[in-house]
Amino acid sequence: MEIEPTRVMVAVNESSLKGYPHASISSKKAFEWTLKKIVRSNTSGFKLLLLHVQVQDEDGFDDMDSIYASPDDFRQLRERNKAKGLHLLEFFVRKCHEIGVGCEAWIRKGDPTEVICHEVRRVRPDFLVVGSRGLGPFQKVFVGTVSEFCVKHAECPVIIIKRTAEESPQDPADD
Amino acid sequence: MEIEPTRVMVAVNESSLKGYPHASISSKKAFEWTLKKIVRSNTSGFKLLLLHVQVQDEDGFDDMDSIYASPDDFRQLRERNKAKGLHLLEFFVRKCHEIGVGCEAWIRKGDPTEVICHEVRRVRPDFLVVGSRGLGPFQKVFVGTVSEFCVKHAECPVIIIKRTAEESPQDPADD
Repeated sequence: MEIEPTRVMVAVNESSLKGYPHASISSKKAFEWTLKKIVRSNTSGFKLLLLHVQVQDEDGFDDMDSIYASPDDFRQLRERNKAKGLHLLEFFVRKCHEIGVGCEAWIRKGDPTEVICHEVRRVRPDFLVVGSRGLGPFQKVFVGTVSEFCVKHAECPVIIIKRTAEESPQDPADD
Repeated sequence: MEIEPTRVMVAVNESSLKGYPHASISSKKAFEWTLKKIVRSNTSGFKLLLLHVQVQDEDGFDDMDSIYASPDDFRQLRERNKAKGLHLLEFFVRKCHEIGVGCEAWIRKGDPTEVICHEVRRVRPDFLVVGSRGLGPFQKVFVGTVSEFCVKHAECPVIIIKRTAEESPQDPADD
């Protein structure tokens, strides 16, 4: 019997594609890779710690069709965003439950790089899995990469799982 | 039953400490971390691919006590180096055998960064584990880091396992 499972933090986020259902391509890939290549059949040996960081841009201010006329509108917006985040986590937690691997999932707001590194310090996972769009150096100038920052600054081992070319949408900055 | 095991390449090297027996601190740590945190009790689910790159500096030309008087001296030197490399691999293969995890081990000569990336392309592991001395930015200027190069250039996911401060020798450039 193994007493303490290996605690794997997986950073997950929402897709940037409109109409694309919930999880981003790269975070779904990172999650599925972890199950297939690391957890395998040893479901009692691992615990997944699913962290979703909601960035300020996703806070609805890029939702140009909305009109904010009262404080209540903002409250509704926050609730809608919270619901979106919960929906995302539910997708991953449900999958873990189906295959019988333990998990914990939670949401934090802020800059993904800072929040992920902060949460690593707080919950001390054995390692961190981060999905990546796998952009080239030219594309990275414009979009930055959360995964590279984590490799440098997170206080635990980090493994980056890149999307393949076939998994990428038409605009590689989308995910 | 699981058909194909997860193939984990682990780059291992010799210690730079004189008199220190064989494996470097960081590569031993990377190996043990892989067994403890990834393989765990699921020994049939994983196969370790142990790659040792012998660098030219280890080729004996820094062995100032040696006198090379005939072509035979060089042959003996090469055989001694080969024996050292085999001894190193034997340490890791023996451990794998003891716990019952499948493995393959081999030696290549050359620049570790280039050779590791080349071997990743050739054998296509699911991911690569590399030990690191965990040096600060000031120390890195002088010694370079194989692990950072691999993260950027290896064509598979890479996980860097750093030594802790307690595991480091007096001179942190040693390993």
